[in-house]
Amino acid sequence: MRDVAIVGAGQSTYGEHPNSGIKELFATAYDAMAESVDRGYDPDEVDAAHVGSLGVGGSQLGITGASLTSHVGLTGLPVQRVENACASGGFALLNAVQAVGSGIHDAVIASGVEKMLDLSGDRSKYWLGVSGDTEYERLAGMTFAGVYAIVAQRYLAETDAEHDHLSKVAVKNHENGALNPKAQFQREVSVEKAAGAPEIADPLNLYDACPTTDGAACALVVPADEAHRYTDDPVYITGFGGGSDYLALHDRETITSLSAVREAADAAYDRAGRTPAEVDFAEVHDCFTIAELLAYEDLGFADRGEGWRLVEEGRTARDGDLPVNTSGGLKAKGHPLGATGIGQVVEVFEQLRGEAGDRQVDGEVALSHNVGGSGGAATVFVYEVAR
Amino acid sequence: MRDVAIVGAGQSTYGEHPNSGIKELFATAYDAMAESVDRGYDPDEVDAAHVGSLGVGGSQLGITGASLTSHVGLTGLPVQRVENACASGGFALLNAVQAVGSGIHDAVIASGVEKMLDLSGDRSKYWLGVSGDTEYERLAGMTFAGVYAIVAQRYLAETDAEHDHLSKVAVKNHENGALNPKAQFQREVSVEKAAGAPEIADPLNLYDACPTTDGAACALVVPADEAHRYTDDPVYITGFGGGSDYLALHDRETITSLSAVREAADAAYDRAGRTPAEVDFAEVHDCFTIAELLAYEDLGFADRGEGWRLVEEGRTARDGDLPVNTSGGLKAKGHPLGATGIGQVVEVFEQLRGEAGDRQVDGEVALSHNVGGSGGAATVFVYEVAR
Repeated sequence: MRDVAIVGAGQSTYGEHPNSGIKELFATAYDAMAESVDRGYDPDEVDAAHVGSLGVGGSQLGITGASLTSHVGLTGLPVQRVENACASGGFALLNAVQAVGSGIHDAVIASGVEKMLDLSGDRSKYWLGVSGDTEYERLAGMTFAGVYAIVAQRYLAETDAEHDHLSKVAVKNHENGALNPKAQFQREVSVEKAAGAPEIADPLNLYDACPTTDGAACALVVPADEAHRYTDDPVYITGFGGGSDYLALHDRETITSLSAVREAADAAYDRAGRTPAEVDFAEVHDCFTIAELLAYEDLGFADRGEGWRLVEEGRTARDGDLPVNTSGGLKAKGHPLGATGIGQVVEVFEQLRGEAGDRQVDGEVALSHNVGGSGGAATVFVYEVAR
Repeated sequence: MRDVAIVGAGQSTYGEHPNSGIKELFATAYDAMAESVDRGYDPDEVDAAHVGSLGVGGSQLGITGASLTSHVGLTGLPVQRVENACASGGFALLNAVQAVGSGIHDAVIASGVEKMLDLSGDRSKYWLGVSGDTEYERLAGMTFAGVYAIVAQRYLAETDAEHDHLSKVAVKNHENGALNPKAQFQREVSVEKAAGAPEIADPLNLYDACPTTDGAACALVVPADEAHRYTDDPVYITGFGGGSDYLALHDRETITSLSAVREAADAAYDRAGRTPAEVDFAEVHDCFTIAELLAYEDLGFADRGEGWRLVEEGRTARDGDLPVNTSGGLKAKGHPLGATGIGQVVEVFEQLRGEAGDRQVDGEVALSHNVGGSGGAATVFVYEVAR
């Protein structure tokens, strides 16, 4: 396939949007994406669109994609909704990359949207549970936090990590979120506050969990050879991969390492011709703090069982040698499910172009990691400033 | 992109499956697909899978794709659910074609599944309404039959067609369904019975509407150059296209022609280098009888406002010059939403290989047409026995 690049990326603010539906949220991200295209965005050039969404709340479960794109005036083109729970955005990007890479299309939108905060009570519990296995987890009463709590229990038992290492992930990501004007939580927390928060599912407490979030994000994928028509500073996607696994924890060989992520990462590194050591910074899927530690290991940044040392040693802090979640991550930036994988693209796009303001880090090779549910699906992308 | 071919295709029976969930339905179609690969199917060769489903009933709304593929033992590979209401299957195929065509993958599953018949009462009404526009149609009380009834009213007012022409679509498709051992309704109906059925939304009656259906379908897409490793009789996909439009009828320029279909058909004919006159037979999306008449016109088989003449003159009957819906169509074969677009592939695959039994027709160029909702999304594919 031919090489591809991102030439525009934008997002809504993440947080509470009581007066916006998914159409308005999508339009905000779309407009921000259009604005970010340095030499101007022409909607007539767009050939196709992929929209990641779990459809939380069910306001428009059918033809969700075209309901959004037609709202911003894009009609005619092939548009579809892509669903892989919290990895819906990542898979929307995977489709866009393949559509452009194949030569079939020359400009494809990869986007995501979710509106979660107007749910309450049972509806909320239902929608947050649909990413686990229905038969063996959700209907048996397991909450989504409960799934990751089991993973965390096992991780703490198998390794030398302690709960404070989980809290330090939250503290780090809040430090970054405090500098991100699009983040849901733009404030720092202390280790003491994070460690002492009310428990939600032993051993996870409130500060181990990402919030529920309204938000949308949007990116424009074009052929690498065409990128300079749009900007002097394209971001090339040099590696990509997706993976899947059994949804229910009990079906997996291990629960402290996600095989879907390892499959996706292998494919992405292989295609990019890069090793984990060559990644300068990363956005990873920290839906719960434990998930960030697993990500370190599954992405090859740390050996198995040693991921907690990266946060202990400050290596993944903004001033460390491998900054992770400079955006604030899902923990502080927020987690509008279907939008998250594309929101990660926005952060990488801004960082690699030197547009990340107070949270700017150095680097020319970046990675994003998006996980569906507890690891039933995952994508990994490698981004570079040069081809 | 490189050329692609289908080397396997299979489906469950369409109808009532009270003792099967979506996993079991999917497995039945997957096994049938595997069985159809002449030189043997090797699951280890599969690189990715796309699953079309609207998720009716909501039993597994998150990571639906991998919940199904892991059930049949496929893990590791990138899998996703594709949603475009009743065109979900068609878009799953579009993704599979692009993934193989790009050279990224060498064997990709395109599939679809829906389980509809265990719904009842309000849940059923909700799920059948989600393909229309939520704000202006569903929440305003419009049923999905009501949407197509408005289209039919307009069509009957604008053209010389009468309601009997709608009934003749049903009669023709039941004639075909009577010969399809996988069809939900394997029985003929008379024009009198179809025309005199109870009204459901003026001018549409019960026999103008497709049934609700449980079912699944599955196809294997490979590079054309590799096809003969699998079979002596591959079916080449020479043309493909997708389109979209506003969901709500009132936003469209016309409601008696679907621009999403015209966009998809233009792209498919253009890529295949074919004209409508060169199509030997077609599977079209007759969710309501009126939809088949619109399909004739939007696909270029008849001039605008003249589609009804094809059924009046028997040209789209099995012994006509352009047989349409030899499977029985959505009307008689059944309409398990996400599976429908892939079920059409199964019919085309069997017909082009001479395996369609009593309903066999002649032809070397075929077309399938899959519509989401009332035209918010659509795909068109052209299939040929030679490249």
